[in-house]
Amino acid sequence: MIIIMEPNSTEAQAKKIVEFLKNNGFEIRFNQGQVHTVIDAIGDKTTVTPGRISGFDGVKEVKIIREPFRLASRDRKPDDTIIEFSNGVKIGGKNKPVTIAGPCSIEDYDGLLKAAIAAKETGCEFLRGGAFKPRTSPYDFQGHGEKALEYMRKAADETGLLTVSEIMDASDLDMMCNYVDVLQIGARNMQNFKLLQAVGKCNKPVILKRGLSSTIREFLLAAEHILYQGNPNVILCERGIRSFDSAFTRNVMDIASIPVIKRYSHLPIIIDPSHGTGQRYLIEPLAKAGLVVGADGVMIEIHHDPENALSDGKQSLPLSMFKEVMNNLNEFYKKNTP
Amino acid sequence: MIIIMEPNSTEAQAKKIVEFLKNNGFEIRFNQGQVHTVIDAIGDKTTVTPGRISGFDGVKEVKIIREPFRLASRDRKPDDTIIEFSNGVKIGGKNKPVTIAGPCSIEDYDGLLKAAIAAKETGCEFLRGGAFKPRTSPYDFQGHGEKALEYMRKAADETGLLTVSEIMDASDLDMMCNYVDVLQIGARNMQNFKLLQAVGKCNKPVILKRGLSSTIREFLLAAEHILYQGNPNVILCERGIRSFDSAFTRNVMDIASIPVIKRYSHLPIIIDPSHGTGQRYLIEPLAKAGLVVGADGVMIEIHHDPENALSDGKQSLPLSMFKEVMNNLNEFYKKNTP
Amino acid sequence: MIIIMEPNSTEAQAKKIVEFLKNNGFEIRFNQGQVHTVIDAIGDKTTVTPGRISGFDGVKEVKIIREPFRLASRDRKPDDTIIEFSNGVKIGGKNKPVTIAGPCSIEDYDGLLKAAIAAKETGCEFLRGGAFKPRTSPYDFQGHGEKALEYMRKAADETGLLTVSEIMDASDLDMMCNYVDVLQIGARNMQNFKLLQAVGKCNKPVILKRGLSSTIREFLLAAEHILYQGNPNVILCERGIRSFDSAFTRNVMDIASIPVIKRYSHLPIIIDPSHGTGQRYLIEPLAKAGLVVGADGVMIEIHHDPENALSDGKQSLPLSMFKEVMNNLNEFYKKNTP
Amino acid sequence: MIIIMEPNSTEAQAKKIVEFLKNNGFEIRFNQGQVHTVIDAIGDKTTVTPGRISGFDGVKEVKIIREPFRLASRDRKPDDTIIEFSNGVKIGGKNKPVTIAGPCSIEDYDGLLKAAIAAKETGCEFLRGGAFKPRTSPYDFQGHGEKALEYMRKAADETGLLTVSEIMDASDLDMMCNYVDVLQIGARNMQNFKLLQAVGKCNKPVILKRGLSSTIREFLLAAEHILYQGNPNVILCERGIRSFDSAFTRNVMDIASIPVIKRYSHLPIIIDPSHGTGQRYLIEPLAKAGLVVGADGVMIEIHHDPENALSDGKQSLPLSMFKEVMNNLNEFYKKNTP
Repeated sequence: MIIIMEPNSTEAQAKKIVEFLKNNGFEIRFNQGQVHTVIDAIGDKTTVTPGRISGFDGVKEVKIIREPFRLASRDRKPDDTIIEFSNGVKIGGKNKPVTIAGPCSIEDYDGLLKAAIAAKETGCEFLRGGAFKPRTSPYDFQGHGEKALEYMRKAADETGLLTVSEIMDASDLDMMCNYVDVLQIGARNMQNFKLLQAVGKCNKPVILKRGLSSTIREFLLAAEHILYQGNPNVILCERGIRSFDSAFTRNVMDIASIPVIKRYSHLPIIIDPSHGTGQRYLIEPLAKAGLVVGADGVMIEIHHDPENALSDGKQSLPLSMFKEVMNNLNEFYKKNTP
Repeated sequence: MIIIMEPNSTEAQAKKIVEFLKNNGFEIRFNQGQVHTVIDAIGDKTTVTPGRISGFDGVKEVKIIREPFRLASRDRKPDDTIIEFSNGVKIGGKNKPVTIAGPCSIEDYDGLLKAAIAAKETGCEFLRGGAFKPRTSPYDFQGHGEKALEYMRKAADETGLLTVSEIMDASDLDMMCNYVDVLQIGARNMQNFKLLQAVGKCNKPVILKRGLSSTIREFLLAAEHILYQGNPNVILCERGIRSFDSAFTRNVMDIASIPVIKRYSHLPIIIDPSHGTGQRYLIEPLAKAGLVVGADGVMIEIHHDPENALSDGKQSLPLSMFKEVMNNLNEFYKKNTP
Repeated sequence: MIIIMEPNSTEAQAKKIVEFLKNNGFEIRFNQGQVHTVIDAIGDKTTVTPGRISGFDGVKEVKIIREPFRLASRDRKPDDTIIEFSNGVKIGGKNKPVTIAGPCSIEDYDGLLKAAIAAKETGCEFLRGGAFKPRTSPYDFQGHGEKALEYMRKAADETGLLTVSEIMDASDLDMMCNYVDVLQIGARNMQNFKLLQAVGKCNKPVILKRGLSSTIREFLLAAEHILYQGNPNVILCERGIRSFDSAFTRNVMDIASIPVIKRYSHLPIIIDPSHGTGQRYLIEPLAKAGLVVGADGVMIEIHHDPENALSDGKQSLPLSMFKEVMNNLNEFYKKNTP
Repeated sequence: MIIIMEPNSTEAQAKKIVEFLKNNGFEIRFNQGQVHTVIDAIGDKTTVTPGRISGFDGVKEVKIIREPFRLASRDRKPDDTIIEFSNGVKIGGKNKPVTIAGPCSIEDYDGLLKAAIAAKETGCEFLRGGAFKPRTSPYDFQGHGEKALEYMRKAADETGLLTVSEIMDASDLDMMCNYVDVLQIGARNMQNFKLLQAVGKCNKPVILKRGLSSTIREFLLAAEHILYQGNPNVILCERGIRSFDSAFTRNVMDIASIPVIKRYSHLPIIIDPSHGTGQRYLIEPLAKAGLVVGADGVMIEIHHDPENALSDGKQSLPLSMFKEVMNNLNEFYKKNTP
């Protein structure tokens, strides 16, 4: 931690900080520059955060040296985290990237089954589907709840797929664990810390989606909340960030975040080009872009009848188009694997 | 709703949409331009959202005409919402702007009481304090929970103040209602829809903070979720948005959002310059800027000993500085009221 | 300057950097943390920038201690810069805030004169008007060029106002100096360094508008380019920044930037609520917000007939509304001055 | 164009607009909704822009139907623009993606020649190098000017490469055309309209870099300025946009902009992962991501001795690393071409 004092700060103010830091076990170096006094606090105490030190009088700024995420950091665990499921499917490391497909929301069993069959046939490992939907407006469809989860479990069992669904509230945790193989935390809940703590206390794998305006550091700190509670099975998901331009795409996919996160963290990361772009024609190219930079999987929204979808029809692939995309992705993956 | 078709869309695609809209009660106008076919759907059905129509093949874009928030809209309720408390304090309309002051987190009773006394002496109406703290890192202080609420209630009763504290989870609702006069929903939970629904079902006033990257429309739709459940007592809070520049201020205060929201909604709105700027020296000027554009109140973080604050010390005013700021704000308000 | 090395960097890499820095006159402190090696380089050489050091192998990040703007900094010149014009008008310091009013583009003499008369009557000091217009689309009106400047000079002389107009190209400098008392550099040209250098070599006062996505640091560095060439008469102008939300306002006014800049720089700063909001009804409240936080002036777009304006009609005040706004601003200023 | 009136607008206001539009040759449809009056103006007059109409009293918002760029639009020219050079190199369409490599700034002939030889050996077609450098701070290296261009021409001729360099001022145009095969307009000058017009009047190919916070629509309108002056040889360049997170990458590469622009425009587009990420280790993955979504070329910063580079050392590839990257990109391209 490096503390930069205001130009007009006093010696007494600097002393007070130095004393506090020493009492908390830091080793101190004191540098008097032309304009600023700079205090180096060497040591690593998660309990004395930069935020605390910046409350002292005379402080202009506190700069961190070490990234604040620890359990999620590759410094601490150099090997890739690999998550293995009961049926042998694995996510992370050098394993083949997985595909997660399914409708934005689960509407009826027959439609869902069609999607599940298409997913299985094209080599997907997971069926996704929303039972509880976070919706910007209260007038939008909110999901069919537990009934939808029953449908999903049944369709997945019939086809031999694993299941993924979003959890919106800690009180649903036990119920949901009966139906899903992977819990998903949505972008809007990335900093719903009660929910992070709750899923951190179970051991189901969790897909954690990046918040709309979350920095990479905040994203890894959100994962840290889950890891800190004891659940090591976190799968990150890049799904686009908010920018100043939404005329042609819903969000901006931060493709570079994937190799960045691979460098600084051991956690697997997948890509969601459906939400990331909001446009059908961009799903295949962005999925490939994600794979090429190292994503451990792809999540794709599909629908057996997008024109009658109750949510996200615009970005859902119809099944025929989905099969074509999957063929292209499978071929692309084969070509580009040593 | 206006539907713009892709240049290469077919007549059949347009027909299918027209039929669907007619079946749902819309009146249709069909305009063939040089490049685009445009379908005007006149009518107002909250159930047929633009998102649904954009799922049809051949659609380039769907533009909304009417704002999607209804209960929060001034179209529907031209008069300002005024929230009145049992002790006669009122928020909204032409009432004197209120002040809400207190520490970021409640640490101990004695410190809190000092803050409460300072708040009361300078004319504040509300004591705020965190009992449950949403923290970016799991290594930051998370709050003292119910014990903190007890302290707050006691300090408020002793000084004659009303209380405000943040709710982070729906399961805490009943417990919290025993202690607080106003529930607060934090910026990170602005789209935690389960929480919005929960507070919508009680009738405690709710301060809803604007999300870090929430548009004004999304902000009002989040309020709509609360109103829709039956709770009309929503107080909006502008607390700064995330931008590309955080070198000198934590966030960018969107001061213009206050008169914009006053124009399009009847709900009261307050300003939080402590979180909005993250800098003590900016609290007074930004509070005044908020008041001058019509804010119904100001929320200020204070601490009896900021250098030992467990959170947000940098932006908390020490009590002496707070008293000076309050004197200036009170005087400013007096001068600028007819 | 503080250099943070990658966790896996070598001793040899660090040594190479230390040697380079020592050869360039820096004093060095070397700190070995648990994870990172940190090199403190004490000294202040504008020629050895952080960018250069970050090119060395093994460097994770270089952090600056001292702000990179020097001539614009209050460290170096604690007193406010005050710019005085031949007619005694002054901008900056404790002087009364100035008002600059006029049409977005100068269309004809009669209309401009009407605007100038209204400006003079209500106490404005400056007439502004565009002769060369930077336009997003080539199909928009580009301005009447030198003829427009002639009109402006004539209307200003007739009414006793000073003149402001935007320069778009260094080759126009001499010609423009014949007509204008203040040169303006538009937001889109804030980092047109050739233009900054050109106006830096003359001694006309320059209004420098903040770029759409410029940080405060970049803004002050753009001013530094002008100061560095020898022209000390720079007036900064906050005119809104680009954000993720443009549904209700064209830009987000960063009101807090005004007191921030006042703290770190001695240069005067004015506010442009017309471009900053793009909405007539927001001009008065945002102008007041700017004044209340310390702006040295306000720039307002007006038009004698906004419905026939060739540019920016939406945000231009009709003259009757302008007079009312000016009365309110004048009264507000009087009330709030000791 | 669709005009949405304010809820409280009058019939007279709407009539005035309708009349104006009819006089300008638009066909009008008038729709009275529950809350808003909506006027459809059918027709396509580049001279009557939405901005003009929004100046009329009572207008809430004007929505465009047709994209405002015309010459750059695929509607107008369905076939890909292909730019051919005297030595047979082609950019655009189904041609092999080109590679442009070279130092950020040209420092001396020997170093440049080393870079040029490496570029040629690995199959690059273009040598790039800065002679005039736009620099955020006046204390940064500004480039060696015409001398640098001489070096570049000589090194390119010696190795059989084409040349690219940035133009910063219209007055340098004739001189620069003596040395370069392609003019580059930098991100900071994307809306320097005088410069766009100047290069639009010559017929040298122009690489136009996307501005830091430019929307895709503004980017294509900037190209439109060049096309409108008669120069059809525009090559767009995606080089990252500014976001709220710059801790790990300098900018966010908007990879999706490439297929979006391919859909709406016929112009070629290349990718610059060096500026887009600012990190050496991200250049190869992001270059591949760009190629996979359809980029017509890649621009890479290289330096024969990055630790002594006068600018952008952090993101410049040393020659050995560059050769490895080029081998991987060449192999990747071969694998993924039918």
